[in-house]
Amino acid sequence: MADPRFFTRATPMTLTQIAVIAEGKPAPGADGGLVLRDVAPLENAGPGDLSFYENARFAKAFSTTTASACLVKPEDAGMAPEGVALVLCAKPYRAFARVAGAFYPEAPAVGVRGPGAVIDPAAVVDASADIGPCAVIGAGAEIGPGCRIEGQAVIGSGVVIGAETVVGAGASLSHCLIGARVRIYPGARIGQDGFGFASGPEGHLKIPQLGRVLIEDDVEIGANTTIDRGSGPDTIIRRGCIIDNQVQIGHNVEIGEGCVIIAQCGVAGSSKLGDHVVVAGQAGISGHLRIGAGARIAAQAGVMRDIKRGEEVCGAPAIPIRQFWRQQVKLSKLAEGKG
Amino acid sequence: MADPRFFTRATPMTLTQIAVIAEGKPAPGADGGLVLRDVAPLENAGPGDLSFYENARFAKAFSTTTASACLVKPEDAGMAPEGVALVLCAKPYRAFARVAGAFYPEAPAVGVRGPGAVIDPAAVVDASADIGPCAVIGAGAEIGPGCRIEGQAVIGSGVVIGAETVVGAGASLSHCLIGARVRIYPGARIGQDGFGFASGPEGHLKIPQLGRVLIEDDVEIGANTTIDRGSGPDTIIRRGCIIDNQVQIGHNVEIGEGCVIIAQCGVAGSSKLGDHVVVAGQAGISGHLRIGAGARIAAQAGVMRDIKRGEEVCGAPAIPIRQFWRQQVKLSKLAEGKG
Amino acid sequence: MADPRFFTRATPMTLTQIAVIAEGKPAPGADGGLVLRDVAPLENAGPGDLSFYENARFAKAFSTTTASACLVKPEDAGMAPEGVALVLCAKPYRAFARVAGAFYPEAPAVGVRGPGAVIDPAAVVDASADIGPCAVIGAGAEIGPGCRIEGQAVIGSGVVIGAETVVGAGASLSHCLIGARVRIYPGARIGQDGFGFASGPEGHLKIPQLGRVLIEDDVEIGANTTIDRGSGPDTIIRRGCIIDNQVQIGHNVEIGEGCVIIAQCGVAGSSKLGDHVVVAGQAGISGHLRIGAGARIAAQAGVMRDIKRGEEVCGAPAIPIRQFWRQQVKLSKLAEGKG
Repeated sequence: MADPRFFTRATPMTLTQIAVIAEGKPAPGADGGLVLRDVAPLENAGPGDLSFYENARFAKAFSTTTASACLVKPEDAGMAPEGVALVLCAKPYRAFARVAGAFYPEAPAVGVRGPGAVIDPAAVVDASADIGPCAVIGAGAEIGPGCRIEGQAVIGSGVVIGAETVVGAGASLSHCLIGARVRIYPGARIGQDGFGFASGPEGHLKIPQLGRVLIEDDVEIGANTTIDRGSGPDTIIRRGCIIDNQVQIGHNVEIGEGCVIIAQCGVAGSSKLGDHVVVAGQAGISGHLRIGAGARIAAQAGVMRDIKRGEEVCGAPAIPIRQFWRQQVKLSKLAEGKG
Repeated sequence: MADPRFFTRATPMTLTQIAVIAEGKPAPGADGGLVLRDVAPLENAGPGDLSFYENARFAKAFSTTTASACLVKPEDAGMAPEGVALVLCAKPYRAFARVAGAFYPEAPAVGVRGPGAVIDPAAVVDASADIGPCAVIGAGAEIGPGCRIEGQAVIGSGVVIGAETVVGAGASLSHCLIGARVRIYPGARIGQDGFGFASGPEGHLKIPQLGRVLIEDDVEIGANTTIDRGSGPDTIIRRGCIIDNQVQIGHNVEIGEGCVIIAQCGVAGSSKLGDHVVVAGQAGISGHLRIGAGARIAAQAGVMRDIKRGEEVCGAPAIPIRQFWRQQVKLSKLAEGKG
Repeated sequence: MADPRFFTRATPMTLTQIAVIAEGKPAPGADGGLVLRDVAPLENAGPGDLSFYENARFAKAFSTTTASACLVKPEDAGMAPEGVALVLCAKPYRAFARVAGAFYPEAPAVGVRGPGAVIDPAAVVDASADIGPCAVIGAGAEIGPGCRIEGQAVIGSGVVIGAETVVGAGASLSHCLIGARVRIYPGARIGQDGFGFASGPEGHLKIPQLGRVLIEDDVEIGANTTIDRGSGPDTIIRRGCIIDNQVQIGHNVEIGEGCVIIAQCGVAGSSKLGDHVVVAGQAGISGHLRIGAGARIAAQAGVMRDIKRGEEVCGAPAIPIRQFWRQQVKLSKLAEGKG
C-alpha cells in the first residue's frame, strides 16, 4: 500500500462499488460483495487488492496475478487466473485511474489560511480555497472556490484563478488568467516578460511585453516549467493540455487542446501548435512556426519549418520519421563500408 | 489595449511628444498636435494608436494599417496609407520600444516593505527600494536605490545589488555582486556552489567553491536560469548580456558584453565567450572552451572545440554552418538513392 | 583569498597540521612548522598559500609556482621549484579538497529558527538543525540533527530528512525520504506527481501517483533540478550520486550508487541506471531502459535502447562512440567529395 506518511487511503469498497466508479460491470459470477482494500499493479497485487489488465505486454503478469480483483476488457476476461473477480470495462487503464483516485482521494480544500500567508486586502479569495503558509496573493487577484495555493506560491496582482485549481509550492504567477481544475506544479513560472529586444550596436533594448498568459481549464503545468507572457498578443495554453517539467514556452505561443509536451522541451516565440500535438522530451520548436493538429515531434527533434497535420518528425533539423531512419541506416552502412 | 488588470497606461500624448521620445521627427505635414492614446502592432492598430514599420515582412500590414500614426524610416514613408501621421526615425523598432515604455511605464520603487519580509538588521537596504512580501535579505547584503525585490526572493548574506535592479519572485542569490539595472526573473538561482568534485573509487569528494558570481550592469537573467559561482576564480556575466529562461551557466564561465543566450542553453565550466556571441536555444557548450567575439551558435548545437571570432556553427558536434548543410544535403541524397 | 563577504577563513595552519588533514606527509627536509594562511590554484598562489599539483596539464604552472607549499605525488616531487615545501600524498586533488574545506569550513548548524519560519507543531525538528527565514516545515516531517534548511524552503508533510542534510533556498520537497549529508540546491523540486496519464479521445486522465522519492546518503541534487515521485514503485537515487542543475528525473527511475548526471539531462520514467554511470550534459534517456553499471553517455546523446555495462555511447539516437565518430568522418568526407 502507499506510504501512510504521505497518502490517506479511503475505507474498503465492494466490487459493486468499484464497478460503478470504473463505469464497468462485474463479470458474470463475480461476487459483488467482495471487499477490496487497495489498488496495486498486477505484479505486486495480493489478496484484497484491485489491479487492471489492458496492455498485452503484461499478459504474463496478468495470468499469474494474485490480485483479488481486476479491471479487464470483456475480450480479455478469459485470460484471468481462476479466483480473480473481474470487472469488465472498455478502458481498464482509465477505469483504474478513477478507482485509484477513489482509494486515495485528494484532500479537498477547506478554507485554510496558512500561517504567514500574505493576502492583499484587495484580493478576492473564495472562502473555500486553501492558502498555504507564506503564500502571497496580490491586489486584485481572484482565487476561485476549492483552489489550493501551496506554501510560498506567489500570485501576482490581478491574476484570476478558476475553481479547484492547484498552485504548487514556490510557483509564481503574474499577468495571467488561469482556468478551472488546472494543476501548476512547484516552481513553475508563469507570466513573466517574454524575451523581446530591439538589438543593435547600441545594445539590446527591451520591448515592453504587454500581453498575458491564458491557461484554459484542465491543464497541467510541470515543475519548474516557464511560460512567458505575450508581447501584445497573449500566450495561450488551451484546455486539456499536459505539460511536463522544465518546459519552456516563449511569448505569443499558442498550444492547442489536449497537447502533450514532455519534459525539457522548448517552444520559441509565436509558434502555434494545433490540437493534440505530441512533443517528446527535449525537443525544440523554432519561432513563428505552425505545427498541424495531431503532429508528433520525436524526442530531441529540432523543428525548423512548419509541420503538417498528423506528420511525424524526428531529428535536428526535424524531417519525416521514415526519412530520418533511412538516413541513419544509410550512414551506418556507409561508415561500415557496406554502403 | 493592454489588460488594465495588469498594465497601467499613461495619459495620451501628442505626436510631437512621441517624436521626442522616439528621437525622431514628425514627417512634413504631419499634425504635431495629433493625440495618441496607445501603441499596437500594425495589424491590430486602430484610431488613436501608434504603430511602427521597419521589417519588409510586414509591408502589407503597413500598407493597410488603420493606425493613426506610425514610426517609420524616412525611406519607407512613401509606403504609408493616406491619413497615417508619420514620425520619421532611423530605427523604428527601437523607437517603438521607447514609446511603448512611455505609454506603459513600470511603477518605480517607492520604498515599500512588504508584510512578512525578513530584513536582517545588518543589511543595508536603500530607503527607496521595494522589498516584497516574505522576501529575505541576509546580513551584510546591500540593496541599492530604486531596486525592486519581489515576494519570496532570497538575497543571501553579503550580496551586493546595484541601483534599479529587479529580482523576481522566488529567485535566490548568494555569493554574488550584481550591477545596476539588472533584471533577474522569477526562480533564477545565482551563486550556489559549482559542480566540482575530486572523483575516485572512494566516491565524489566536493571541492569547496570559493569564488563568486559577478553580474555587470544592464544584464537580464531569465526565469529559472541557474548560474553557479566560481570555484576560486569568479563566474562573470558582462554588461548588456541578455540570458533567457532555463539557461545553465557553470562555474568560472565568462560571458562577454552584449551576448544573447536563448532558452535552455548550457555553458559548461570555465568556458569563455567573447563579446556579442549569440547562442540559440538548447545549445550546449562544453567546458574549458574559448568562443570568439561575434560567434553564432545555432539552436541545439553541441560545441566541443574553440570557435573563432565571428564563426557560425551548427550541429552536434558543432561544425561550420555551410559544412553542416552540405552534409545534410549529401546524406539526404544518398538515402534517397541519388547520392 | 576568497571574498570575506562570503567566506570565513580559518586561522593559519602549519605544514604538519596540513599534512594530517591531507592524509599525506611532509617531504624530507620540508619545514613542518611552516605557516600557511590560505589555499590557491598554482597560477595564483603566492607566499603563505598552499596549492596542489596532480595533472600534467599544469606542469608548467607547477614548475613556476610561487606557492609556499604544495600537495604533490611522491613521483612528482622532483618537478617542484626550489623553496616550495611539499606534502606528499597519493591523491593531491582529493587532499586539496580536504585542506580547502579546513581553511574554509562551512558554519555548522546551531539550532537557529529564522524569523517567519512556519514549523508545524506536529513536525519533529532536531534542536541542532537550522531553519531559515520563512521556511515551512509540514506536519509529521522529521528534520535530523545538524540539518540546514535555508530560507523559503518548503518541506512537505511526512518528509523525513537525515542528519546534516542541507536544503537550499526555495527548494520544495514532498512525498520523499532523504538520507544524511545530502545537499539539495536552491529551487530543486522533489516528490511532486510523476507524469502519468491514461490518454484517449476523452482527454488525459491523471493516474494517481502513489509512490515516493527515496534519496540515500551523500547525494547532491542541483539547483532547479526536478525529481518526480513514483507512480506506485518509488523513484530512487542511491548513495553518493552527484546530480547537477536542471536535471529532470521521471517517476520510478532508479539511479545507482555514485552516478554522475551533468546539467540539463533528462531520464524518462522507469529507466534504471546501474552504479557509477556518467551522463554528460543535456543527454536524454528514454523511458523503461536499463543502463549498465559504469556506462558513459556523451553530452546531448539520445539513448533509445538498453546500454551495456561499461559501454560508451554518443549521438541521437545514441550508438557506440567509435561507431559515432566513424559515421561523422565518413559523412564529412562524402560531403566534401572525398568519400
